[in-house]
Amino acid sequence: MKNFVAYNPTSVYFGKGVVNQLGEVVSKLGLKVLLIYGKGSIKKNGVYNDIQSQLKQINAKVWEYEGIKSNPIVEDVDAAAKMGIENQIDVIIAAGGGSVIDSAKIIAVCIANKSKGWDVMKNKITISGAIPLIGILTLAATGTEMNPVAVVQNHETEEKIGFGHPSMFPKHSFLDPQYTASVPANYTSYGIVDLIAHSLENYFGDGDATLTDRFVGAIIQEAIEYGPKLMNDLTNYEYRSKIMWAATNALNGVTGNGRVTGDWGVHGLGHVLSLLYDVPHGASLSIIYPAWLKFHLPLIPERIALLGKYVFNINSPEETITRFELLFKQLGSPVRLSELKIPNINNEEIIRVWIKNKAQGAYFKFKPEDYTTLLQAFE
Amino acid sequence: MKNFVAYNPTSVYFGKGVVNQLGEVVSKLGLKVLLIYGKGSIKKNGVYNDIQSQLKQINAKVWEYEGIKSNPIVEDVDAAAKMGIENQIDVIIAAGGGSVIDSAKIIAVCIANKSKGWDVMKNKITISGAIPLIGILTLAATGTEMNPVAVVQNHETEEKIGFGHPSMFPKHSFLDPQYTASVPANYTSYGIVDLIAHSLENYFGDGDATLTDRFVGAIIQEAIEYGPKLMNDLTNYEYRSKIMWAATNALNGVTGNGRVTGDWGVHGLGHVLSLLYDVPHGASLSIIYPAWLKFHLPLIPERIALLGKYVFNINSPEETITRFELLFKQLGSPVRLSELKIPNINNEEIIRVWIKNKAQGAYFKFKPEDYTTLLQAFE
Repeated sequence: MKNFVAYNPTSVYFGKGVVNQLGEVVSKLGLKVLLIYGKGSIKKNGVYNDIQSQLKQINAKVWEYEGIKSNPIVEDVDAAAKMGIENQIDVIIAAGGGSVIDSAKIIAVCIANKSKGWDVMKNKITISGAIPLIGILTLAATGTEMNPVAVVQNHETEEKIGFGHPSMFPKHSFLDPQYTASVPANYTSYGIVDLIAHSLENYFGDGDATLTDRFVGAIIQEAIEYGPKLMNDLTNYEYRSKIMWAATNALNGVTGNGRVTGDWGVHGLGHVLSLLYDVPHGASLSIIYPAWLKFHLPLIPERIALLGKYVFNINSPEETITRFELLFKQLGSPVRLSELKIPNINNEEIIRVWIKNKAQGAYFKFKPEDYTTLLQAFE
Repeated sequence: MKNFVAYNPTSVYFGKGVVNQLGEVVSKLGLKVLLIYGKGSIKKNGVYNDIQSQLKQINAKVWEYEGIKSNPIVEDVDAAAKMGIENQIDVIIAAGGGSVIDSAKIIAVCIANKSKGWDVMKNKITISGAIPLIGILTLAATGTEMNPVAVVQNHETEEKIGFGHPSMFPKHSFLDPQYTASVPANYTSYGIVDLIAHSLENYFGDGDATLTDRFVGAIIQEAIEYGPKLMNDLTNYEYRSKIMWAATNALNGVTGNGRVTGDWGVHGLGHVLSLLYDVPHGASLSIIYPAWLKFHLPLIPERIALLGKYVFNINSPEETITRFELLFKQLGSPVRLSELKIPNINNEEIIRVWIKNKAQGAYFKFKPEDYTTLLQAFE
């Protein structure tokens, strides 16, 4: 096992009605609150009212930044940070899914360091800290609620990249599975794919970490048992809670301890599809992962076979890949890009931006000719 | 799944040579250090010198409290706390196994609150905090290096009990598997039993937490794969590292999230054997657990069968119990009290002190007549 540091200071409040404790938690951090959210779905499903009611009880002063996009852009980060700096915000509450909480992490750093979002993302500043961030999760998928990483995109530079810093752990996150009950089928499915993909990206990382491998197996088994059940019963609290907690664990350290890094090749490749064609993140992963596994089969057959043992209790690496592809299909997520019926797909454009984004995993450094092979396997 | 809070702020430095970072870590917390350890084995295996060398580099002033017993007693806690208070200690370094780090947790609370150890253990004071504690682990077993709980005994009141408080998380813990290489076979075996027992105590807790169940299975499988290998090759770094990290995970939250509490019945029963006859903690668990499982078989057969599925990939609850008993034997840990050849065992005395210590689990509240049946199953 390689040397590593295990550290995760986020406190997660999990379960029905946990947002009832939000006011008390916020009051310990300060009363000038910046509330960040997306396109307003939290106003329809009651989450917004629950938060405002808690903030009213403690007489907090609240500024709001609405409209974070589902593939979040750096312009929103800078605009929200400006609002936070001007009003000397004490604490950020980010209510939404990965895009909102990811944006809020960079906003929290920008406010504390009076910096620009893209300078943070490109690691151009020395970060002295971040203002405290509280996540209210409304989509089970990215795991951002309990890790220090954010993904943001920049159309000007044609980049969608990740950045992490220890100051970016949310201080607290509130996970009420009821808040995910209104997520529609397609995004529920993408979220389950995302948690499976995070487990896989970590599994294919650098280092011999057997307990961590077993945890990956456990998380994916949980998704296999409860994912399809949830897809057939979208408002079932128990199934929502199983998937929500599995998604958090897929990327809170449990699947990474003992490895230097995950692979993250499929995420890098998928981010470019999102950047160019606004492909939902989870959909990009279910499209690319089977192709990625087929591409790597001759290179790491034993590793793929061991995954099959932990997840499906089978020994064949080929069968393991088939099972994952079937699983994604069963969840209702696409496994070929053509299923999305995007007009004017341009393969040369995809490859050009893959190269520009250095979309390579830790294990296999793609070359331009490999990109073509890979693309043909999922187009 | 029941509501819960997941929180663990300890940072764990894991791997070969990690104590090289100790000086830097200590220097951020203060330079007046109380170093606590046991009967001096750390002076033989180099750990003491490694620590002193790090503390010398930062010109720390070091007080030492030596002689914590393997079943730690409250008198040592009070004496060390007195030393800490008198010398206005900034930080405690606890170098040893569970007994040393557990004692240090209570000492850290006593110093910060100027209180007596047993008042802390019996929850008689309002805890305002604790001075920072750094653990240097030399025995893979209890998981105390990454949780906020301590077990201490008091011969005067005939009690061996546990107590936990959020301020009792170690701030940092250093886990170098090399430091466990000189642990003799019997205590290595007891440590592996302990980590299995912690996973089981959590598994038999209160609440439907399927991902947590799977994690329990993963940790015990790791112990099954690497425990016997380690027993045959005690200085093997890889095997030591597998068992060390499994032991930490068995009691750092991963096996408890989603449950209100573990059962902890076997621990309560075993503590009394340690209190009365100085039975090593791990040995008390391998002796009692098979009997406990047999006793519970008619009550919770499905739950035991599910454990068998996660751990051994079998369906029979009876076979599951047999396999655990065989596993403990294979590891070289006793499964009957008589194996320890303790003179003057007094069953009435054991039962009297069980009753006095309220040695009951969360699931099954033992009555005096149950105690006799249980005792007969392992005597």
